[in-house]
Amino acid sequence: MLERINGPEDIKNLSDDELQTLSAELRHVIIKTVSENGGHLASNLGFVEATLAIHRVFDAPRDKIIFDVSHQSYAHKIITGRREEFSTLRKTDGISGFTNPHESRYDPVFAGHSGSSISTALGFAAAAKNSGSGAYAVAVVGDGSFTNGMIYEAINNCAERRGLNLIIILNDNKMSISENVGGISRHLTRARTSREYLTIKHSLDDFFAAIPVVGRPIAKALKWVKDSFKRIFIRDTLFENLGIPYVGPVDGHDIARMTSVLTEAKERGGVWLIHIVTKKGLGYKDAEDHPEKYHSTGKFDPKVGITGTSESFTSRFGETLCRLAGADRKICAVTGAMRDGTGLTDFFRRFPDRAWDVGIAEEHAVAYCGGLSLSGMNPVFAVYSTFAQRVFDQVFHDVALNGAHITLALDHCGIVPGDGVTHQGVFDVPLFSPIPNTTIYSPETYSELDESLSLALAGGGVRIVRYPKGGEHVYDRTGFEKYGGSMTARLPDGRRDAVIVTYGIIAEEAARAADALAGEYGIGVVKLIRVHPIDGDALLPLLGDAKVVYVLEEGMRSGGVGEALSALLATACGGRRVVIRAIDESFVPNGDRESLLARFGLDARSVEAELRSLLDAPGGEEA
Amino acid sequence: MLERINGPEDIKNLSDDELQTLSAELRHVIIKTVSENGGHLASNLGFVEATLAIHRVFDAPRDKIIFDVSHQSYAHKIITGRREEFSTLRKTDGISGFTNPHESRYDPVFAGHSGSSISTALGFAAAAKNSGSGAYAVAVVGDGSFTNGMIYEAINNCAERRGLNLIIILNDNKMSISENVGGISRHLTRARTSREYLTIKHSLDDFFAAIPVVGRPIAKALKWVKDSFKRIFIRDTLFENLGIPYVGPVDGHDIARMTSVLTEAKERGGVWLIHIVTKKGLGYKDAEDHPEKYHSTGKFDPKVGITGTSESFTSRFGETLCRLAGADRKICAVTGAMRDGTGLTDFFRRFPDRAWDVGIAEEHAVAYCGGLSLSGMNPVFAVYSTFAQRVFDQVFHDVALNGAHITLALDHCGIVPGDGVTHQGVFDVPLFSPIPNTTIYSPETYSELDESLSLALAGGGVRIVRYPKGGEHVYDRTGFEKYGGSMTARLPDGRRDAVIVTYGIIAEEAARAADALAGEYGIGVVKLIRVHPIDGDALLPLLGDAKVVYVLEEGMRSGGVGEALSALLATACGGRRVVIRAIDESFVPNGDRESLLARFGLDARSVEAELRSLLDAPGGEEA
Repeated sequence: MLERINGPEDIKNLSDDELQTLSAELRHVIIKTVSENGGHLASNLGFVEATLAIHRVFDAPRDKIIFDVSHQSYAHKIITGRREEFSTLRKTDGISGFTNPHESRYDPVFAGHSGSSISTALGFAAAAKNSGSGAYAVAVVGDGSFTNGMIYEAINNCAERRGLNLIIILNDNKMSISENVGGISRHLTRARTSREYLTIKHSLDDFFAAIPVVGRPIAKALKWVKDSFKRIFIRDTLFENLGIPYVGPVDGHDIARMTSVLTEAKERGGVWLIHIVTKKGLGYKDAEDHPEKYHSTGKFDPKVGITGTSESFTSRFGETLCRLAGADRKICAVTGAMRDGTGLTDFFRRFPDRAWDVGIAEEHAVAYCGGLSLSGMNPVFAVYSTFAQRVFDQVFHDVALNGAHITLALDHCGIVPGDGVTHQGVFDVPLFSPIPNTTIYSPETYSELDESLSLALAGGGVRIVRYPKGGEHVYDRTGFEKYGGSMTARLPDGRRDAVIVTYGIIAEEAARAADALAGEYGIGVVKLIRVHPIDGDALLPLLGDAKVVYVLEEGMRSGGVGEALSALLATACGGRRVVIRAIDESFVPNGDRESLLARFGLDARSVEAELRSLLDAPGGEEA
Repeated sequence: MLERINGPEDIKNLSDDELQTLSAELRHVIIKTVSENGGHLASNLGFVEATLAIHRVFDAPRDKIIFDVSHQSYAHKIITGRREEFSTLRKTDGISGFTNPHESRYDPVFAGHSGSSISTALGFAAAAKNSGSGAYAVAVVGDGSFTNGMIYEAINNCAERRGLNLIIILNDNKMSISENVGGISRHLTRARTSREYLTIKHSLDDFFAAIPVVGRPIAKALKWVKDSFKRIFIRDTLFENLGIPYVGPVDGHDIARMTSVLTEAKERGGVWLIHIVTKKGLGYKDAEDHPEKYHSTGKFDPKVGITGTSESFTSRFGETLCRLAGADRKICAVTGAMRDGTGLTDFFRRFPDRAWDVGIAEEHAVAYCGGLSLSGMNPVFAVYSTFAQRVFDQVFHDVALNGAHITLALDHCGIVPGDGVTHQGVFDVPLFSPIPNTTIYSPETYSELDESLSLALAGGGVRIVRYPKGGEHVYDRTGFEKYGGSMTARLPDGRRDAVIVTYGIIAEEAARAADALAGEYGIGVVKLIRVHPIDGDALLPLLGDAKVVYVLEEGMRSGGVGEALSALLATACGGRRVVIRAIDESFVPNGDRESLLARFGLDARSVEAELRSLLDAPGGEEA
């Protein structure tokens, strides 16, 4: 059936049974593709029927379907004209693992961070109201995102907005990325089971049925009491209290029921929150049983399932933190719904009194760490670089300003293969450097990670340890020596034509470029481990009289190490020729590391070529 | 009575009547001081009795009292040993208008941004639990802050946390800074009036009383029904739905009642949300009647009240935006609970269909603007620079990445006299510059503001117009000419010894320093209006062969214009001597503009002295 689906219009006339068949085919494609390419499995398997129901009822792309985070949009992608290309999922120039407007007009926005979908959808809905287009906005939001504050900011703004057509689908699959936490989770559980409502309703009916003679006033009162109960229960969910009507819970795998509920909401117009319940991983047994394992996965054999994990910066961080925390009871850890993703699963098991999963609530996490620190604890907030973009103000206001000491363990820094443009970790150095009393470490190896983490925990102020997705790179580091405690360098024996200053795993590219040029030029390589503040006293002598200082950064140029170093040199010694090779005025799309490095001129071959042209050119001589 | 209060212990044995007298004295001091020094009046007048009740029941500084935003902490300051110094409120080296741990051990944290208090308090409470200290954390949060997402992130984390002692006081004064908005406001109104609960309870009692013969089963059922009602009403407030017990509403001016409720919560332990109702401005009639006028005010005559407002960048922004929006129906405006503060009151009156006050919800505001823009509207989000620190990720993820075009109108940029360390606008340039396709304008005059705003609205991508608190500075700008469309400059007739590159109202200091040195040296002044990206083609020729390029910035050095310019020069012409005078590795405390400029070496006299030493020194010759 799937081969006949070239756009959402092709599903509109299918029967419930045909859609059920289509669901099975979609699951098959999703399992096959994710097992081959990696990606998000469990959430996508859970959202197949709901996707079909949404496209059956609403008219994309006129109606805007906005997926929160959008990792659950695979079925949507396949049925909106991307069936053929779907096999390129997450590959360079292939189909993105998240919605992507460059890919399809059915994807209204890029998305990858939690909690913004309702805000965006409200913007679409308000504009549609003003233009009188009558279009709907549909926000699809997982229950995990309901631990994020933006959702409440947006819901608060949905209340009392007349004439808006906005449907919020709360996709309750009973967990966010890790196990769900807190009050909202409990509230949804209560709504799901709804036992109390049923109990009270039954008891009341029994009670009133047992009164033998019912006069008119009593009958009237009886109806009034029953209506009140109903009114109260329907009105007083969390969402009703925030001012928007609630419908649910609805079985998100029942296409007929979903269709009828969505149709009714659409026909009535206005703002609705529809609470649907789905099962993560549905259709692939191991993912149903262990959905967290299949949240975001690499390649795997679908006959066997995911087995084991290899060592990575993530796992090494978790091990080292456990070791340090075993010896120091003040060390504690906070994660935003990513115990597994940040390597903290063991920490949570071993130190449950000192480990907090706060939900997808990065802002809260940092301010919470501030309070812990001011009380004498030594908190570590482990988070992906891209999600840490949410916490600049809290790091400033609730930590640094208050003289608190926290460690941000930033995972997935630099280029993040596969996940794409929303998940690159290229902003953290410019972002946090301006905050006073902030120190940033960017280890390249596991042992540097250990050392950086120890320094961070021992230090004061804001300490950031940033490391990449994946594992340590292996190459010949012979000749690198330590200088001044915060950098290593390999200097040429004779003339120093150029010195490359770099940090993180891209140091490998620098070293390889220097190797390639070794016969012709003397190229030094300085690898900063502490990237902010730069230790000028140690660094400046290493530059010698090199004609070019070449800064190689796997991050944004503006506000990065290259600019800071240029200013340092301009102040200290009247300026030097500095060439910065970094990511500049561009977003970094999805793709594998090699192709992305090449795209931005950050790979060894590009660096070699650029250095050659700089050193050969007459301008190089004069500088 | 007040003269006997030297610390919170001095109020513990006062009677309710004595505390009532003390309240009147505190109000007198607050009105007197704010009318003389400026500050927050309405909120402080509303929180006098509640402050006394909190200090009566809890034992600060062991128990941590954390004020959200902390603009309502004046009574707290006066009774915690700062009675005498309170007359220096908001003056340089005086008492801060917000809590300040450097000032008193009764202030656990610096605070000035909304929504983080519960997170911080939860950190204190969790640490107290782990250490077994038994201390309480008390968070005081205005109803306005309940429009901020962090509050919900934190409340979600308060649920299911056993053994924590955390009291959240929701200070409901029926409005945030401007009129309150959205679902939460409606919910609180319902809770405040509680009419329905009373109605139902009465009707039920009447109903059951009217049944003449009540057998045992019916009596039992009757009790059950009444209990159910009670249980439902108490359990199903918004906060109960989020998992924390709710008490209220309580009259926040009734010291005896407040004392008894707080004492009960303290004795029971655990987490409580206590909803109190207070009246903004209580005790000063004009502030009671017009609380928004007295939210944050300059000096005024208490006999007359606040009269009129003078022209400022804020008012000019509002006027210009109204003018532009009158001619273009796509232009729309968003504010985060600051219609007055950002100059948009008239805009809201004139264009109600295109103006949205989203509450203190900056993150939502930006994503919402993203949706509006992608639907073809032309949104302007007006916000103070310091509060815009919350929206880096949304500007990246929900706007820039999606190719949306929004204008951020950043008010209160640079040094912000009076408000202090939490409110300085010194991070915005480094913060937003790394985001691709971002343009930042920093007008110095009203006409440059008009021009920048027009350019911003006409352009694409993220357009930021940043301007200071207060009004245009008046000084002799003779000799300044336009270059390349994004800068003006005044160049010396003869030799160019140094060129000062600067932007914003600090340009006045640069011009005055250049004037002072005019007899001895040739000093050019370049004033950038567009500060990012820098127009190198226009700027480089202006530098001529100046020995020193001197960058003067009223903002953070790291990631600022000086570093960007150093890198530009290092790449373009092999490096130049660049000296950057900016704020570096320091927070900016409260004080008046003159003293703060001098403190950081940013005033004309310091600039003059530094330039003289740079140009006289032998090093200057060589560069």
